[in-house]
Formats: sequence, C-alpha cells, structure tokens
Amino acid sequence: MSKAKIGVVGYGVIGQRLADGVAKQQDMELVGVADIAPTLAIRALAEKGMPYPLYAALPDKAQIFEKEGIPVSGTMDDLLQQVDMILDATSAGVGMKNKELYVKHGVKAIFQGGEKGGVAEVFFHGYANYEKGVGKDYLKLTSCNTTGLIRAVDCLDRAFGVERVVITIIRRVADPGDTHRGLVDVAQVDPVPSHQATDLMEIMPHVEATGLLVHVPTSHGHIISILATPKKAASKEQVLAEFSQHPRIRTVRIADGFNSNTSLFRYARDLGNLRGDMYEIALFEETVELSGNNIFFAINIPQEAVVIPETIDGIRASLRMQTEREAAVALTNKYLGLGLWKKTP
Amino acid sequence: MSKAKIGVVGYGVIGQRLADGVAKQQDMELVGVADIAPTLAIRALAEKGMPYPLYAALPDKAQIFEKEGIPVSGTMDDLLQQVDMILDATSAGVGMKNKELYVKHGVKAIFQGGEKGGVAEVFFHGYANYEKGVGKDYLKLTSCNTTGLIRAVDCLDRAFGVERVVITIIRRVADPGDTHRGLVDVAQVDPVPSHQATDLMEIMPHVEATGLLVHVPTSHGHIISILATPKKAASKEQVLAEFSQHPRIRTVRIADGFNSNTSLFRYARDLGNLRGDMYEIALFEETVELSGNNIFFAINIPQEAVVIPETIDGIRASLRMQTEREAAVALTNKYLGLGLWKKTP
Amino acid sequence: MSKAKIGVVGYGVIGQRLADGVAKQQDMELVGVADIAPTLAIRALAEKGMPYPLYAALPDKAQIFEKEGIPVSGTMDDLLQQVDMILDATSAGVGMKNKELYVKHGVKAIFQGGEKGGVAEVFFHGYANYEKGVGKDYLKLTSCNTTGLIRAVDCLDRAFGVERVVITIIRRVADPGDTHRGLVDVAQVDPVPSHQATDLMEIMPHVEATGLLVHVPTSHGHIISILATPKKAASKEQVLAEFSQHPRIRTVRIADGFNSNTSLFRYARDLGNLRGDMYEIALFEETVELSGNNIFFAINIPQEAVVIPETIDGIRASLRMQTEREAAVALTNKYLGLGLWKKTP
Amino acid sequence: MSKAKIGVVGYGVIGQRLADGVAKQQDMELVGVADIAPTLAIRALAEKGMPYPLYAALPDKAQIFEKEGIPVSGTMDDLLQQVDMILDATSAGVGMKNKELYVKHGVKAIFQGGEKGGVAEVFFHGYANYEKGVGKDYLKLTSCNTTGLIRAVDCLDRAFGVERVVITIIRRVADPGDTHRGLVDVAQVDPVPSHQATDLMEIMPHVEATGLLVHVPTSHGHIISILATPKKAASKEQVLAEFSQHPRIRTVRIADGFNSNTSLFRYARDLGNLRGDMYEIALFEETVELSGNNIFFAINIPQEAVVIPETIDGIRASLRMQTEREAAVALTNKYLGLGLWKKTP
Repeated sequence: MSKAKIGVVGYGVIGQRLADGVAKQQDMELVGVADIAPTLAIRALAEKGMPYPLYAALPDKAQIFEKEGIPVSGTMDDLLQQVDMILDATSAGVGMKNKELYVKHGVKAIFQGGEKGGVAEVFFHGYANYEKGVGKDYLKLTSCNTTGLIRAVDCLDRAFGVERVVITIIRRVADPGDTHRGLVDVAQVDPVPSHQATDLMEIMPHVEATGLLVHVPTSHGHIISILATPKKAASKEQVLAEFSQHPRIRTVRIADGFNSNTSLFRYARDLGNLRGDMYEIALFEETVELSGNNIFFAINIPQEAVVIPETIDGIRASLRMQTEREAAVALTNKYLGLGLWKKTP
Repeated sequence: MSKAKIGVVGYGVIGQRLADGVAKQQDMELVGVADIAPTLAIRALAEKGMPYPLYAALPDKAQIFEKEGIPVSGTMDDLLQQVDMILDATSAGVGMKNKELYVKHGVKAIFQGGEKGGVAEVFFHGYANYEKGVGKDYLKLTSCNTTGLIRAVDCLDRAFGVERVVITIIRRVADPGDTHRGLVDVAQVDPVPSHQATDLMEIMPHVEATGLLVHVPTSHGHIISILATPKKAASKEQVLAEFSQHPRIRTVRIADGFNSNTSLFRYARDLGNLRGDMYEIALFEETVELSGNNIFFAINIPQEAVVIPETIDGIRASLRMQTEREAAVALTNKYLGLGLWKKTP
Repeated sequence: MSKAKIGVVGYGVIGQRLADGVAKQQDMELVGVADIAPTLAIRALAEKGMPYPLYAALPDKAQIFEKEGIPVSGTMDDLLQQVDMILDATSAGVGMKNKELYVKHGVKAIFQGGEKGGVAEVFFHGYANYEKGVGKDYLKLTSCNTTGLIRAVDCLDRAFGVERVVITIIRRVADPGDTHRGLVDVAQVDPVPSHQATDLMEIMPHVEATGLLVHVPTSHGHIISILATPKKAASKEQVLAEFSQHPRIRTVRIADGFNSNTSLFRYARDLGNLRGDMYEIALFEETVELSGNNIFFAINIPQEAVVIPETIDGIRASLRMQTEREAAVALTNKYLGLGLWKKTP
Repeated sequence: MSKAKIGVVGYGVIGQRLADGVAKQQDMELVGVADIAPTLAIRALAEKGMPYPLYAALPDKAQIFEKEGIPVSGTMDDLLQQVDMILDATSAGVGMKNKELYVKHGVKAIFQGGEKGGVAEVFFHGYANYEKGVGKDYLKLTSCNTTGLIRAVDCLDRAFGVERVVITIIRRVADPGDTHRGLVDVAQVDPVPSHQATDLMEIMPHVEATGLLVHVPTSHGHIISILATPKKAASKEQVLAEFSQHPRIRTVRIADGFNSNTSLFRYARDLGNLRGDMYEIALFEETVELSGNNIFFAINIPQEAVVIPETIDGIRASLRMQTEREAAVALTNKYLGLGLWKKTP
C-alpha cells in the first residue's frame, strides 16, 4: 500500500511537532510544510538543512524566505496538489479560511483545538471517539488540555464507567520562549465551567463535567486535578493498574523526583527526546486517592506535544487507514515509541 | 473592665499584622513586640517612630538594635511580666522553646500554624470551634490556607451541613520580598492528601476531606477550588447568599475585574488598607457551580493577613473575654472593620 | 493666594497616585478625577466613600458608573470648567486626543511619558530642567524609568559634572495585578540604545548616553546599573554623600536587607505608605564603585509612584507657582514628606 | 594513539553534559559516570539503556541503584582504576574531598567553577589561558557566567586589546526543573564587584574589571551587558566581524526573533540539539554600540552547557594531547560541531 501523503500548514509549536510525528509513521509520508514568515522555527529548519521541504503559504511570501537564504519548494497550491491530507496548525481563525483551499483541492484536513468548532464535521479524540472520525473529511482535534484530560477520563471510563468529573486546571500561561503573552506573579481565575469541561462532555456525552481553570506563570505543562465518579467502585490499586497500562499515560512517583511539570520536561530532555518533548501525560502516583467512591488524582499535560498522537490517530481515521480504534492507536503508539518504557512484569 | 494586655513575639510577616490587629481592638492593649534582629520590619518600626515598644527576644540582642539606633524597651522577661497573653509568631520550632518561658511566667499564648501540634491544648479556628478554646491556656491557630478554607466550609456547614470536601490548593510559594524561597517556571505537586485537608478534619471531625496542593510561582494569595458535598441540597443562589452574608468572606465578580489573587491585592492597596492587606478571603462568584448535589467554588486566601481575625478570636476565647462564639467573632469583626463593605439591601 | 485647581484624567496606576499626591499639596486643590469605566481603581474609590469627585470622561459613560452604584459628579466638561490644569494619565495616544479639549477650555496640562512627544512644548523633569517648564502650557513628563534615572544622573551632574553615561535597565515587565502583559521565564532584550538613554540626552543635552534594556518577569521596580563618566574625579565617599543628601534618593544597604526591588516594596508596605508606594528611587550603597574615573552604581525605580513628585513640580512650573527650581522641588518634597527619613548628623 | 580515558563524577546538570561532550570527542573515551543516588538524571540514563556505565560514588550506594533496577558497573575505585582523568561535577565542597581519591589513584582532574579555588593548580579557560593548563594535574574551570563572559572579552582582547570592562549580569536564578531555589517577582541585587569580574581579572590579569550581578526569576540563560575599553579604537563593524568569526559565539539578530534568553533555548530545541542545549554564547547584534571609544554589547550565557567546550579543552591541556591553544580549541570545536553554522562568505 502506498503511504498516506501528508502536509503540515503552520510550522509553529504544534506544526513542527506534527511534522516530526508524521515523519516517524512508516505508513505516512511528510510531503512538506507551509508557513508565511521566516520564524525561528523556519530558521531552525534551514539550519538543519531543510529535512522537510518548505512551501510558501501565501504566494508573495516566497521571496521573503529566499531573501533570508531559506530554500522554498513552491506555493501552497503546489503542496496541496501532492497530499491526501493537511494538518492545519495555523493560528485560530486562519484554518477556517484555509479550509476553502482544502475543499477546492479535494484534500482532507485536521484542524487543531483553537480553531472554531464549525470548521469540522467531527470533534475528535483518538482514544475516546475514534469511530466517529472514520472516513470523515474534516476533523477538529481537542485542545491540548482536553486531549490529555480525556485520555485519563477515557481510561477510567473503559474500566469502571465514569458518570461525572470535576476538574481544576492549573494552566501554564505561555510556551517556553513566548514574549507575546504571560503573567507575572498572578494566578488568574476563569469563570466555571472551563471550556475543557464542556468539550469533554461533547466528546464523552454520557459524562457530566464541570471545572475551574486558573492561569499560572509557568510554561512547562498544565496540572489538572480530577475527581471522577465511577459507575462501579474501584480501589486505588485498580485505578493505578489501569493508568499504568495505558501507553499514553506515564505513571510517575513524586518520591522519585517527578514532583512538578518542569521535572518531567527536564527528564524528557535528559532522555534525549527531540526538543525535550513528551507525548505522554503523566500521572503522579501519590495523588491517587479515593474520596468516598470518587477517584481523585492529578496529571500533567505537556502542552506542546500532547496532541501529536491523537492527531495522527485522526489521519488514520479520516483516511480509513484503520477502521478499528485499538489497531489504529496501537500503530500510532508503535511508531512514536509510546509504551516502550513500560516495565514488563 | 481593664484591657487585655497582649504581647507579640516574632515581628515578621504575621507578627507585624497581629500587632496592628490587636492595636485596633478597643478591649485589648498591645504592650509591645519582641524580636531578635534588626530586620526590615523592625527598621520600618523605627522609621515610623516606634509606635510599639520593642523588646529584645534574646538578652544579648539588645545591643544589636541599639547599634542600629533602634530603641529597645527591655528584654523578653520585661515583656512577659506585663502581659496576659503572647501571640507567638516566630519561625516553626521556636514557639515550642518559647513556651517554657510563657509557662514560667504564667502567660497564655497562641501559636501560629507552622508550630508543632503538641505545643497547644487546642487546634483553634475562631468560627469553627471557638468553644473549644474558651479558657484554654495554649492555642494553636490553623495555618493561613486552612484558616481561609475552614471559613468557607464552616459557612456552608452551618447552612446546609457538609459531609465531604475535596480541595485543590494552588499555593503561592513565597511572600512578597522573600529571597530565601521560590520557584521559577515550576508548578510543584505534593502528595495527596495535603495537610490542609487533614487539618480541616481535625477542626471539623464530621467532615471527610482530601485534597491536592500545587505550589506555583506567585506571592499574592492561594487559590483553592472546593467541592463540598452538602447534607441537604442547596441551590447556587442559596450558596451565594450564605457567602455574601459572611463578614470574613468577600464575594467578588471576575467580570468586575477581580480575576486573580493579585487583583485583590491591588484592590486592597487602592482601598488604602495598611500594607495592602485584606483580612477577608474572596469568593469568585462566577466559580460557584453545582455538580450533581455537590457545591463547587473557588476562593482566594490572602496569606499574609488571613489569620489575624481568627487569632484575635483566640485571645477572646482563651482569656474568656467572651464565651459565646458569635459575640466574640462579631467583636473582632467590628474592631477590624470587617463586614462594613457589605451592601445593605 | 488661592489654591491651584487640579484635575486628573485617567484614574489608573499613575492617575490614582497623582490624585493622592496633589491632595497632599497645601497650595493645590484636587477638584476631581475622570475616567471612562468602573475599573477596580474606581470601585475602590467608591468603597472608600468617594474622597474625590468622579467625572465621566465620556458623556455616555456616566450611566455605566451609576448602574454600578458609583456616584458621578458630572462630565469632563464640568471638570474642565473648574480647573487650572489637568494631569493626563490616560493610555498612550488618548492624551493627544484629549489635548483638543484642554486647549478648547484654556486649561493647561501635563502628560505622562507614554504620550507622544509632540503633545507638549517641553519634555520635563522637575530636578533637571525645571526652568524650561516655567509658564509653559503643555508639559510632558519623562517616563518612570527615565525620571528615576535622571534624578540620579542630575544629582551627580550638579556635583561633579557628567559627560557620559552607559546604563543597563532591568525592567519590570508588568505592574502588580496586570493580566494583559507579562513574561514567563524570559529575559527579553531590546536593541541598544533604549529610549531612556535617548530621553536622557533630550533632557540633559550635554550628556552622551547609551544603554540596554532587558525586560524581566518582575512587577516591583526597575533596577538600573549606571556607569557615569564625571568631568571632575569623585571618590566613592563623595558620590555616596551626594546621593545621601538628595531628598528623592533613598540610600539603602544590601547588608540591612534591602537586597532587591521587592524588599523595598515590602519595606514601604511596612512603613504604612499608602499602597506600599515609595516616591524615592533607592541607591544600593554596596554597588557604588569606581572603574577608573567612572562612577558605577545601581538604583531601584519604583515604577508606580516615582513620577508623582516630578509631575507635581511640573504643576508649580507651568502655573508659575514657583519660578525657582530649588524652591519648587523643596515645596513638593515637603508636602510629600520626602527627605524626612534622613538622619540628621 | 590510544584514546584518553575519561570519567565523570557527579551526573547532574553539568555532569550529564560533560559525559555527552566527551563521548563526542574521537580522541577520548568516556569510561563511565559516578553518582550517589537514583536522581532523575540517572533514571533517564537507565531508561535510555545505560549508554554509559554507572559507578556508585560511595560504596554503600550501589544497592540503592540496584533496588531501583538501575545496573551498576562498580565502585568509584573501579572507575578510578580505568581512567586518565576525572571531570568532577559534584556539588561545591565535594570535589575538594574527592580530590584525595584522585591523588591516591594518580588520576588527573578538572573541577567545576563552584569548587573552592584551592582545589586546583590552575584556574582555567580554554580560550584565554590554555597554555597555563598544559601538563597540570588539577585544573578548575571558570563558572558558567565567567566562561561565557571571558569568551567575549578574550575575543575583543585578541583583536583590539582590552584595558577595562564593566559588566551587568542578569543572572537566571535556577535551572529548569529546580525546586530547591528560586525567586518570585524579585530582582535581587548583589554587592559590587561580582565574583565574575574578580574571576575575569584572575584569568586575564591585564584587564581591570568590575560589575554588578542581579538575580532574576528566569531559568534559561544569563544576560550580560559589557562595556569594554579597548586599547585601540574599533568600529562597530570590526567588533561584529570579530564576534562573527568566533566558533563559540553565535551572533544573532533581535529582528529575526532572537530577542531573549529563552528564544535561544527554543531555537536550540528546534534545531534538535540534545536537551535543547547550546554550547555557544549568543551575541545580540543590535546591542553592539560605541560609547566614546568603549564597546558596549550584550550576550546570552546558556548556563547548562556553556562550560562543556572549555572543560574539554582542559582535558587536552592537562593530558598534553595538544600543547597549542589554537589547535586544541579547534579540535574541541570540530567534535562538538561548533562553528559549522557559520555562513561561508
């Protein structure tokens, strides 16, 4: 079977990681990436010797790249003529405009969580509602926070059933290196419910959810506390066992030094992961506790990379590369190296 | 009736505010404060012209103050001979040692939350267990987080009964100006349950509590999300009504600009409050939500000043100035100006 | 002599402090303040019982205040008819528009440093070029950083002559409570020269200046290192003596605990200063050092309050309340309580 | 020629990078690393499959590693018997104790900048005083800040001569992930001169240096402004040309997006550098300016990795692998890939 031909539009924090993630899939081919300006990400691509061809997302931008000595392989049209699917990782609102081009070229697309809901037929999460995305032309992925949150809730839901969740999100307010946003010495409170709770209910309609989001001055991962009311009672050990077996959840111990969002980032750097990224959410083992029948725990969401696996799942669903959820996510996991660190019993 | 004679030992962040709070009580007299070094707090006292007499907490320290031109009124012994009660706001562990002196001089004392449990007969909170402190010689106050948390939970408990609470504390990791502690770009996770949940159960033994504490790089107030399971169902409006009537809880609206811990600090500065302090915890109105029967909401704890009212309640209890809880807290509130901002209907 | 009648337009961080500063001047009367929205600053004014009358800066905004229960005393026109001078502390660009109104009403005005240069006849600093402002209708004050910087350089210039300065500004990137700007874990570098160096040369044309500005994630004061080349050699002791005698410069010792921007803020809070403000810049004594003939030292600029004294000097200059520089600043200092903390020999 | 056999003692932030750096040198062999506890760095080593053998730095610690499933290859004695030289990257004070072991085993060693001066015969910097280290048994490297600072000053010194420098260091206060140190909303000022200025004079005795250090709440690189007085006048272009040709200095443009310490870190991550590290200091082009004859500019010091090249230079010097400075640093640069990004004219 020929490989699925994929393009990435918008080569920023998410776009770079989507490109690298797709390039690892043996059944996919990364045709190229498109952007509009010689950002640091594009400059790094050039310094690395252009491992991926670059296309000018707007026709008149090609010369800007060339002026900076950055080779350009063509325009957006050139890219769209070569691909089966686009991963659109542009800024919110741009994807909606780009969609016209994708439709015109008969190219499928996955949009990221920041894009407006109407852009896609299905609001998608690889683990929670894979089936809904199968064969659909346009998917929108859940946002970084929601993607990681749903991973954890879906894990419990498939094991014990989940009726209700209440979450508190401690949101990192900027990515490393951002200078256009940030907070100094402020924990900023949003009205309840946060959109992550609402989004969770859209993906998992049988669950009732609410939650608070507080923005804090950090850049290396959201921390979420989750109180889940299961349908059938579960012991702490059963809960831990479920989380431990999930290839996209890394169970870590505070006692071992995994005591923060940034310790996980540091560990990923020390592992030699590209950019110090981690695809897995982390579950802090010592935070798992029962309150009555309810399951309480805290996770870390590595906001820069967490959506990559579920987006790649979306490619498999939309292009019907796999119609079975479990087979699809297993393939993504295999190519991304997820689950390999699990200790064999 | 003669005024209760009070001394403050340890003139740091808490000690300064205790001194100022006591000085506002018309039925108390602040005899003096004691410390061991010419800290900035002591230097500010001197620059203000010594509104409170200073005593050297260790005999050999008097000359250090005098070398800096700071007048000293005597030693710790001199202070203890004049007072009915000491508010001990020294560093953790020092209070335990100081207690021997207090016992020797037959002086009652209230210790702050950082001190070891064994230091006192009663673990005290003005609103939640005033009666237990009446006539007792040695009280230990709840910590700042716990003091504010219990205010809110006690408020609901007296209205609806509370069976269970699950909390997530977003803890400010340092006070403004601290250089001996802090975090940079880190949200640090502690094991569950946090001591605040455990402490709440000690003060309110009929409530089951657990919770998570995450340290974040801020200095102006802890944010706590609370999920409380009431004994009898309560509507959102009923919950808000209860909070609105509590003199030590300030209900604020995110829509009005009260969107963070630091906006509350800024407001208190603009109000002209001494040091920009606020005695009240704040309830963010738009965070009150029901999840099933459970009540969800978020509060802000102004860590520097929140314990002052409950500590002053403790004076009233220990010295039997009031034996009735409601009368006692009402008097403290009156002298501290708490509840005055409430809109009359 | 009747008092100078002053209005403040824009009741934000600077406007509030200008209002309070003017209210302390025994030869001035604060007629009122104007703003367009019920910000937290306005809400605090209301909670305090409206010590200053409020005017709606735009006619249709009056009802917004009233809807919130905030009493309004009239419109901008009403305010302009009663005053001799306006202190315009609106956002950058708004002052330029407001100027038309001021001209129409024949009212003088002082604009803050963020406003465009063309708005005023004179770029003003109370200590450095008071004479230029005398009798002028429209002044623009130096920005917070430049105001404090010039205080220090002017102090040396009058004593030793200054030929050249090279500065490094460590700029606090947001004010306490700001949620619309900030940095997380970033020190952001601007091109050299920073505008503060350029502005200094405009105010002190005989000095050659350049400098670097680095934005850092703090909110309590800019730190500036200054290397000044004097015309005549000065010893470290002479330099310290000059700074020590300046009523708007507070010489502090790191060894005493004044080791940061925020320790100064904390001290001002403990002093009981309104909002924890400090009008003085601080000179860290242990940073004064000679490098060859050049004088090296570091200062702290309390960005929220530093411009208040020089703005009030500007009122005196523009309204010809004083034509002599030294008499003018002495009066401002007296009413603001500046220099009182100086130890008498 | 047989390869130089190197061991690393202390596998923390610096030790890990030293190990990786040595492993890249084709004329060196990394025999193994030693540590005392299963830190995250050691756990990452294990998860990577032990690319380097681990030795227990204290005999009784081996079982702790094994309990955690981390394979141990022997004790410190075992390591010392196999190596020609140790790179000691332990905490300050430990290296001094370890030295006895090194002496006993007749093994040479390089200590890091935090260790006490007396530990070594020579205070070493690869570019500035290579010759002094040739054949010496014990070297101590300059600290991270000083290493980067001297690179820049030495570069100017060899081109134009440098008589005097005045520096302002904006110091990142913690490394990413640290929870044992940090600052919140504080810029902390140290007395002048900072040790970096003093250390520079020890390495470059013909230069007079002083400087200020301010600690700020960031974790991704120190920013230093430098004013250098050259012996012979240099134009801005000449200065830039010298910096541009230095293999360990990366000249970057703020206009291109390199506007902060963290943008450089982000770029290094995007480049695919291990851990997002950068060996080079960065010079911000738009900060180069003349003030009179003096050269002003600002650099970024990537504190985690900057000392690696100069430490490896030290191996070459101590083991007499090269007696010529230029040949030695060229070899280190070649194996570390330094200078490869330079555009050919």
